[in-house]
Amino acid sequence: MNIQLALDRYTIEEAIEIAKSTEGFIDWIEVGTSLIKEYGMVSVEKLKNAFPNKVIVADIKTIDNAYYEFDMCFRSGADVATVMGVSPAATINACIETAEKAGKRVMVDLLNTNDSQQKELFHYKQAIFCAHVSKDEQEIAGKQNIVTEQIYDPTVQLAVAGGITLDSIASFRELQPNVVIIGSAITKAKDKRLAAKQFKKVLLQWNGERKHENIR
Amino acid sequence: MNIQLALDRYTIEEAIEIAKSTEGFIDWIEVGTSLIKEYGMVSVEKLKNAFPNKVIVADIKTIDNAYYEFDMCFRSGADVATVMGVSPAATINACIETAEKAGKRVMVDLLNTNDSQQKELFHYKQAIFCAHVSKDEQEIAGKQNIVTEQIYDPTVQLAVAGGITLDSIASFRELQPNVVIIGSAITKAKDKRLAAKQFKKVLLQWNGERKHENIR
Repeated sequence: MNIQLALDRYTIEEAIEIAKSTEGFIDWIEVGTSLIKEYGMVSVEKLKNAFPNKVIVADIKTIDNAYYEFDMCFRSGADVATVMGVSPAATINACIETAEKAGKRVMVDLLNTNDSQQKELFHYKQAIFCAHVSKDEQEIAGKQNIVTEQIYDPTVQLAVAGGITLDSIASFRELQPNVVIIGSAITKAKDKRLAAKQFKKVLLQWNGERKHENIR
Repeated sequence: MNIQLALDRYTIEEAIEIAKSTEGFIDWIEVGTSLIKEYGMVSVEKLKNAFPNKVIVADIKTIDNAYYEFDMCFRSGADVATVMGVSPAATINACIETAEKAGKRVMVDLLNTNDSQQKELFHYKQAIFCAHVSKDEQEIAGKQNIVTEQIYDPTVQLAVAGGITLDSIASFRELQPNVVIIGSAITKAKDKRLAAKQFKKVLLQWNGERKHENIR
């Protein structure tokens, strides 16, 4: 189980600084969509250069032009790139293929997908699926990502995202996500290092409990 | 009726050069998604600086973080910014509000929207709706944007996009789109200026015929 630190609405330098202060407790680093759209691929390059041993996720939110965008992310140093699940099938396919050729990975953002779209998408066992409550849904509509009503296919790899806090993270334990994406609960914490450490502690505890359950 | 020149998969300098060679025959200039994601907001700034009297469309394809992304586009000189119609309602609303406050405009990309989503979206009479066959659908799935099966609400402002050529443009006449978005049929033409001139001629002819019809 990995913690993905989401870096959004920062300059590249601020993003690097925040990631540095939490480095020991996070696993994956997300170059947020806002960084990519504001600064371009140099944001991915600089984050990968600063953290060559971390998994770098380019949250490019591809919805068309899949080969071009994914190739550009991987050439810039991304290990994972994101595509919107609401994209046409041709786009999703091209992302999966481009990642496979590059030996990299795809995260499919399930934002606003319906049940039948999810059912189709879940055929891609090599992808990671991100159950995503968007920033706008959180900030404008007041929605939170706590255990969703959707039933996820237990055979797919899952990431969860959207305003997750130390209070709400417990609700995800049963889902056993592969990746827990944390943004402002770390980046806006007074002590970012401590916040990251606390999240890591929860995840390590889950891992321990699960091992124990398996033994029983 | 306006021609929007779509500039994608180029460097900023190439994009400016192409737009310059066709300047007399195009009305709107689209800073393509690939330029924004590759180079960031500097692509919008440089295109606006090069063409201060053209309408600059930032094809940012927002699907979250609406206020931040739209504000960034408008501050960089965009006159129009795009949002995906498949976004959550909170996002579309925030784009409309941000544009209204800035005295700018929203183009809603209808890519992969269904009938009920379109019905909801068409309440926004101030927006322009882009009937969009994506690059991937054209290049991978072989789909073309000729007259679509969908019936558009005649009270909304419409743009059409997706592999439109001098051969296929005729099929859009009945739809009376406000904006016809042309990419490779101009940018990949041997004589780009001539290609742009020919498209402009078709649109001027449509305008003339329509005036004539009204007089009758």
